[in-house]
Amino acid sequence: MAKGGYRIIDSDMHIMEPPDLWQRYTDKKYRDYAQVGVTSDNVRDLRTVHPDGRPWGAPVRAASRPSQAGGRNYERNQKLYVTHAERGWSTEVQLEAMDVEGLDVAVLFPTRGLHTLAEPFMDPPFAAALARAYNDWLYDFCAPAPDRLIGAAMVSPFDMDDAVAEVERAVKDLGFRTVFMRSNQMTDKPWHDPFYDPLWSALEEYDIPIGFHEASSSGARQAGDHFGANTLLRRVFAQPVEQMMALASFCGGGVLERHPRLRAAFLEANCAWAPWLLWRLDEGYEREADVFVPEL
Amino acid sequence: MAKGGYRIIDSDMHIMEPPDLWQRYTDKKYRDYAQVGVTSDNVRDLRTVHPDGRPWGAPVRAASRPSQAGGRNYERNQKLYVTHAERGWSTEVQLEAMDVEGLDVAVLFPTRGLHTLAEPFMDPPFAAALARAYNDWLYDFCAPAPDRLIGAAMVSPFDMDDAVAEVERAVKDLGFRTVFMRSNQMTDKPWHDPFYDPLWSALEEYDIPIGFHEASSSGARQAGDHFGANTLLRRVFAQPVEQMMALASFCGGGVLERHPRLRAAFLEANCAWAPWLLWRLDEGYEREADVFVPEL
Repeated sequence: MAKGGYRIIDSDMHIMEPPDLWQRYTDKKYRDYAQVGVTSDNVRDLRTVHPDGRPWGAPVRAASRPSQAGGRNYERNQKLYVTHAERGWSTEVQLEAMDVEGLDVAVLFPTRGLHTLAEPFMDPPFAAALARAYNDWLYDFCAPAPDRLIGAAMVSPFDMDDAVAEVERAVKDLGFRTVFMRSNQMTDKPWHDPFYDPLWSALEEYDIPIGFHEASSSGARQAGDHFGANTLLRRVFAQPVEQMMALASFCGGGVLERHPRLRAAFLEANCAWAPWLLWRLDEGYEREADVFVPEL
Repeated sequence: MAKGGYRIIDSDMHIMEPPDLWQRYTDKKYRDYAQVGVTSDNVRDLRTVHPDGRPWGAPVRAASRPSQAGGRNYERNQKLYVTHAERGWSTEVQLEAMDVEGLDVAVLFPTRGLHTLAEPFMDPPFAAALARAYNDWLYDFCAPAPDRLIGAAMVSPFDMDDAVAEVERAVKDLGFRTVFMRSNQMTDKPWHDPFYDPLWSALEEYDIPIGFHEASSSGARQAGDHFGANTLLRRVFAQPVEQMMALASFCGGGVLERHPRLRAAFLEANCAWAPWLLWRLDEGYEREADVFVPEL
């Protein structure tokens, strides 16, 4: 599929995890509390819930809405994905889709899994167990074609010992070459807080990048969530603004200053705002960096 | 001062209200509860507090910080404004500053007053009284040069009967030609909620524009406020993102569709992000407007 001598690589392709992934892969100790995928007539039902039915990693009010609104985009997707859904979104389906798109290699991000750690202040050992479950499943998913399928391992934002241990396990035991996180805050600490430094150092040490990937909803506060049930307006802001704020922590909060070998991608959030944001950060730097970030 | 036959108009100039404005102008019934300006050695001390000392229209944590950080920008401002401060930021001072800048006319926005109604879910009659106080003071401030000084009247976001009554009073009794509001949400309703429609209708009826003007801090939740004491990063997002979200309500939430003669300005928040935001809104419209805003 290489074209003109170049291989085509998708830096942000999604897989569709099975709804019972966490029931099958989570450590027994935590399994009964784990995220459950919801299924319905919607072949792309992406909802996940707590075992008691409460929304998981999403605003509680979302539970009162239909799983997907029945518009033209919904109808289009039902036709587009019905055979993929019937075949269980398997590795074979993924590779076929890549063939159709002309992709040699893809970095793989989750769908249901984007919400796994998207609840604020989760119990750290529980969060770490859910991340391990996803990563173990992802290893199996990628195993038939490790040269084409590059999984992004999930790491916990709640405890840096857990995060660093999972980076080590992902690299050494599972052969992963990148990790991912949601960009919106699940703790009371912005990304430039020293709390996260051990993770950034580990990524430098293992020389692997992190991909920040946001989603359209979260169990935590999220940009635009005051638009509530108007998903159109929520989506306009959720991913881009959360990514802008994470990027600002990295550039203007000193993460990249303290970790010069760290590589970070901010995915699926547009980039036409980048010139404005970099200008705006420069403006702030000129006005008051001497007070707020004297180390930069 | 007109240059080449054109008059120069500043659409967003600020005045510096006296710290005891609300003690002097507020209805007696509410005066003891009104906003108090804080003064200190800082000639541009902009803090305002409740009579008991709690921060007003600002995060509580801000109280533990110095009124202004002592950086190079602070020092510059102290020198630049010291004589203006000594002369009480009077109308005369304002007009002199306009002469220096070559401005014929300026639309005037508040400074301390940006925080007056920036506390969520204020008691509506109290909020309306504070707005009337500001507007009465502003009338006096502009009176010496009404052709050059165009005050923007404050209106309450908490009760639309109050807001409409103040629009009518501002236009008919005080001769104002525009009103302003903060863009960030002080109620649980986004700007496109029908709750606000009476205000938009009144502005259409009186044929005056509204200027949305955000500030670097708020008593309500505000974009970027998780950056906390890092005012540099908070400022990067506070004004621009709150304005983006208000603009999205106007364009994508149907305010301008329902009020085609309404004119709104979104001020002091940059605009290099506008091409991205309009594209992003269009993307959302194409994908799911049929579900979420079928009226557009």
